[in-house]
Amino acid sequence: MARISFESDYIQGCHEKILEALVKTNMEMLSGYGDDCYCHSAKEKIREAIGQHDSEVFFLSGGTQTNQIVIDTMLDSSEGVISANTGHINCHEAGAIEYTGRKILSLPQYLGKIDINDLKSLVIGFENDKNNAHMVAPRLLYISHPTEYGTLYSLEELSEISDFCHAHGIGLYLDGARLGYGLASYSTDVTIKDVARLCDAFYIGGTKVGALIGEAVVFKKDSLPKAFFTKIKQHGALLAKGRLLGIQFDTLFTDDLYFKISRHAIEMAELLKKVFIKHGFELYMDSPTNQIFVILDNSVYDILLEKVGFCYWEPFDADRTVVRFATSWATSENDINTLDEILGNL
Amino acid sequence: MARISFESDYIQGCHEKILEALVKTNMEMLSGYGDDCYCHSAKEKIREAIGQHDSEVFFLSGGTQTNQIVIDTMLDSSEGVISANTGHINCHEAGAIEYTGRKILSLPQYLGKIDINDLKSLVIGFENDKNNAHMVAPRLLYISHPTEYGTLYSLEELSEISDFCHAHGIGLYLDGARLGYGLASYSTDVTIKDVARLCDAFYIGGTKVGALIGEAVVFKKDSLPKAFFTKIKQHGALLAKGRLLGIQFDTLFTDDLYFKISRHAIEMAELLKKVFIKHGFELYMDSPTNQIFVILDNSVYDILLEKVGFCYWEPFDADRTVVRFATSWATSENDINTLDEILGNL
Amino acid sequence: MARISFESDYIQGCHEKILEALVKTNMEMLSGYGDDCYCHSAKEKIREAIGQHDSEVFFLSGGTQTNQIVIDTMLDSSEGVISANTGHINCHEAGAIEYTGRKILSLPQYLGKIDINDLKSLVIGFENDKNNAHMVAPRLLYISHPTEYGTLYSLEELSEISDFCHAHGIGLYLDGARLGYGLASYSTDVTIKDVARLCDAFYIGGTKVGALIGEAVVFKKDSLPKAFFTKIKQHGALLAKGRLLGIQFDTLFTDDLYFKISRHAIEMAELLKKVFIKHGFELYMDSPTNQIFVILDNSVYDILLEKVGFCYWEPFDADRTVVRFATSWATSENDINTLDEILGNL
Amino acid sequence: MARISFESDYIQGCHEKILEALVKTNMEMLSGYGDDCYCHSAKEKIREAIGQHDSEVFFLSGGTQTNQIVIDTMLDSSEGVISANTGHINCHEAGAIEYTGRKILSLPQYLGKIDINDLKSLVIGFENDKNNAHMVAPRLLYISHPTEYGTLYSLEELSEISDFCHAHGIGLYLDGARLGYGLASYSTDVTIKDVARLCDAFYIGGTKVGALIGEAVVFKKDSLPKAFFTKIKQHGALLAKGRLLGIQFDTLFTDDLYFKISRHAIEMAELLKKVFIKHGFELYMDSPTNQIFVILDNSVYDILLEKVGFCYWEPFDADRTVVRFATSWATSENDINTLDEILGNL
Repeated sequence: MARISFESDYIQGCHEKILEALVKTNMEMLSGYGDDCYCHSAKEKIREAIGQHDSEVFFLSGGTQTNQIVIDTMLDSSEGVISANTGHINCHEAGAIEYTGRKILSLPQYLGKIDINDLKSLVIGFENDKNNAHMVAPRLLYISHPTEYGTLYSLEELSEISDFCHAHGIGLYLDGARLGYGLASYSTDVTIKDVARLCDAFYIGGTKVGALIGEAVVFKKDSLPKAFFTKIKQHGALLAKGRLLGIQFDTLFTDDLYFKISRHAIEMAELLKKVFIKHGFELYMDSPTNQIFVILDNSVYDILLEKVGFCYWEPFDADRTVVRFATSWATSENDINTLDEILGNL
Repeated sequence: MARISFESDYIQGCHEKILEALVKTNMEMLSGYGDDCYCHSAKEKIREAIGQHDSEVFFLSGGTQTNQIVIDTMLDSSEGVISANTGHINCHEAGAIEYTGRKILSLPQYLGKIDINDLKSLVIGFENDKNNAHMVAPRLLYISHPTEYGTLYSLEELSEISDFCHAHGIGLYLDGARLGYGLASYSTDVTIKDVARLCDAFYIGGTKVGALIGEAVVFKKDSLPKAFFTKIKQHGALLAKGRLLGIQFDTLFTDDLYFKISRHAIEMAELLKKVFIKHGFELYMDSPTNQIFVILDNSVYDILLEKVGFCYWEPFDADRTVVRFATSWATSENDINTLDEILGNL
Repeated sequence: MARISFESDYIQGCHEKILEALVKTNMEMLSGYGDDCYCHSAKEKIREAIGQHDSEVFFLSGGTQTNQIVIDTMLDSSEGVISANTGHINCHEAGAIEYTGRKILSLPQYLGKIDINDLKSLVIGFENDKNNAHMVAPRLLYISHPTEYGTLYSLEELSEISDFCHAHGIGLYLDGARLGYGLASYSTDVTIKDVARLCDAFYIGGTKVGALIGEAVVFKKDSLPKAFFTKIKQHGALLAKGRLLGIQFDTLFTDDLYFKISRHAIEMAELLKKVFIKHGFELYMDSPTNQIFVILDNSVYDILLEKVGFCYWEPFDADRTVVRFATSWATSENDINTLDEILGNL
Repeated sequence: MARISFESDYIQGCHEKILEALVKTNMEMLSGYGDDCYCHSAKEKIREAIGQHDSEVFFLSGGTQTNQIVIDTMLDSSEGVISANTGHINCHEAGAIEYTGRKILSLPQYLGKIDINDLKSLVIGFENDKNNAHMVAPRLLYISHPTEYGTLYSLEELSEISDFCHAHGIGLYLDGARLGYGLASYSTDVTIKDVARLCDAFYIGGTKVGALIGEAVVFKKDSLPKAFFTKIKQHGALLAKGRLLGIQFDTLFTDDLYFKISRHAIEMAELLKKVFIKHGFELYMDSPTNQIFVILDNSVYDILLEKVGFCYWEPFDADRTVVRFATSWATSENDINTLDEILGNL
């Protein structure tokens, strides 16, 4: 039997309803490049779900691609994007943002989140600097929600950030690679309608939340970049068979599937935490979403890795390491039970 | 009943064997980013099929993406890519090549093909120009095979081009978006092993030949660009669920599926031609692959378009228009018969 | 004694009045980055000379730099620049335009000029193309005046081009590297006020017309790109000692110096033509500006080159070569007489 | 009489010997693009002065341009440049580095300098990171010497940094915008030969040290980027009249002029410090080079600024501001005496 794994939330294919839809529609003759009935239907369902009927929705393939295209096209070349220094765009996207000519203006991070006071200080410092024509202007704020550490902004924090940004001519862009898991957390007061209301652009992650591939980017009506469709093509990101993305999101946004499977992952994560605590493991932090960070003795690390997949995160101290266990839409109670056994037999 | 369509070779999903493989493997827990058993297996099968066991194979999502990344990374910024002026990269990729900073040096085209004498003239002209340090150096040749007009290079032409390129320090890159259909043509003497032997890089198109999405890029061992994996990520082209591409190409290269379904499309194209001729239509050219170009009276254009999908190509004269009908792996004899009836009832 | 040379119009330093001004102002303490009294004065004098009092003027160092920055900043990344295929930007700027991500859409050339019918055909073809969202939009026209062949547009041609561009949402940008020589030609009906009125942006070349270095870019008020000053810095083109450019243009636009020294070069060019004709040489074309193209027997080429500097242009036929002799603000009658003697003694 | 100014080290023209050389050579007919006798001679003198006879020398116009071209061309697109977060490239170059697609990997700064332990931590962290194929590789270190705060590395520090870089495949690039002032400091043990020996590339600043314009970039023989001349052109940085740079550097490196005038600026800076101390002003730090940072009461700021030019630096506390006074090759004892009087009369 194959080893079970909690290595990430993208180790399995897609939700069975998506597979069914792909099978069912397979031989239909549809126009290419996203101009098909499933893309249209999916966009309409997303607009309904987020409560913004005049927003613009596009489907892309992955998170880095989405971040790159959105940030590149929302900014002029004289403008930069603000991000926590642990932001995915600043660390693990191989310089994709700079590759398109945009500068990242980094802020300190607190478990992956920015603090509004640091943001104010950067922006007001720029505004007051007499030499700021020699500098990249801060004109977009990138936040991830959940963050790379699985943490969440509260509605109050998000509102305050949004207000500050808009008062200073700064767009707010939210990376929702794991948005479903954030919205389904037991400890959030943020809804998808809040996200859509407060952000100028955001994306609803599909790849990590039930889809084979795909992210749905949403722009406020007035925030749609010029010639965005052409720029998707220019970035090499336009799929000939756009249906692949449309069919998936149409399924995810039918009967609240996206939200239900996200909630399931959160329930599994809560069970996971309990299992670790039961076996005396220390959690690195109290994660509110689907990523659980555990402090492992280095002596146990390799032994455990042989039995179950997980992800190296960072050193904790000389003798211990932080590792990540992720649940997803596909995690079963059976998986948790198997882990329980493995931990019991260590 | 929905209207049938010959609009393009990407109007339907994927071959049923691919669907089956996706269904069968769906819940397997696999590592991300292409480091899974299906990607590994697919690469091995491709190396076997092309007869180059030390070549490097990568999977990408679409043709423009592939052209952009390959051309960008095979060239230094002081170098440019030569292409027929009708080359896909020069016309219908929204400036994707220039977006990455590379210049296209264009050559005249003859039904989509370049002539080696034009190539020689450009390259030798550059070499002899005393001011060529003020110019972009021609260091890569882009050809499509089949071309955008569905035409094919002969083995002799391809060999001569390859020899000339290599004698002058120029890499040869072949865009194989429809490679299968080219290799399956009744009138070609080029095999996939020839392509792999003569080119420094090429890609085996999946999107138009049976896959939902995906192109397999092949580099000669010594032609692999530095840090290519990182650059895929940097271009936003790395799929978290690389399995989606690996499973498809593993299926396409099992039991010669790729070649069999390509041959089927060619057989359907031959039938298609006969149907048009039978009904008195004039063909624009004698196409050897899956794209059939027909000259339509403008008076018939709209009437026909209501009954069957096809693609506008270009004006022929004041009264007539060139249009394209494409077959694919998915075209059935039934589709051809339906068209036959439609044409008969015009 | 050093060999005399007609190799180009940038083989000597600068006009003596510029040298004097540099000496006189040398120890004045002035602010950097173009914010000094000489830059301000020069801009005002240029606005006066061109008859556009609300235009925006910036000083840059060279022609390629100017073309690169202007074209990059006047266009969105989804847009391209139209140029004759012999345009300097397309041939001898080492891919500087593509380096910034912009595509050049090339037109046929007729002695360096474009024909408005080719322009119309390209633009209207784009507008009518159903797939033009997959294409770079033509949004700027680059012309050089004089062209790379020293030829000139008539006022009627320029007006017609300008009208067509503006009717189709296309900006008109004129490369005036040798603008002075064009305006001073015996056979032009175009004034600098016409240029300023008909173009959205153009530059007044200094490097080839009396300055050590420097080009003055002029934008129509509404055509100034966003954050242009910051983008000059971003391109590495902002001089700390902006005075160097301001002092020179202030001198060139005092007492019509720019126009007077340009006229002198034209007078010298007319003498030059006569000398060649007198000695039985064939002119390649009847050049109206300061560049004279002569057809040389290959047997004479090297012998002549030992005695006088000139510039290789292109092969004429198997036995003859086109070469260029250029006059400038610095050419003296004595230089012409020396050449007369040299040709007489061949 | 015009107000005197210590606003920067680029408020005056150029050293009189440079002016003399420009006047003397003005009408000589020289080839363009740096292929003239003065450029060749200047390069030879620089090679001699730095003790590296096979190094490659190029002349560019300004600091940002030089940093942009050097960093862009020394790195592959998968690679980034390490810099102190106060590095000029990270703050005041309007994103020029990112504009060319390169990422800056920032380190903490200590009065403008980096600490080797931070460098080690970044580099070794990258090397040990299992996911580093998703990251930009640190492959070049940028340091400024003097730094933006006028501070200097010791020979020991520079050697240690150089050794570490080379042991880890990282190039060392030194921004010498004010290199002369650094080498002439009373408190340095670093010579230009040390710089040339320890760095893979560096530039000798001219604009701030006696020239009208110009920086001399030096590459170790094996570090010269591919097609560097063509890339200068591609960046719009190639001057037609390259003589302008060659003549200046030829003069600066004749009879040690560059070093003598740098020493003069340091002597003036030492006098300047004494004047401030004599009048009871507090220095922000003990600057070893030509930039003196003074803490001003806000109540005095505007009054003083009316009488003498200086540069705003940053807030010190609620009531006081850090300002910069710079000396240069052009500062006279008379200027210092005038300031002495002004301060006495405050």
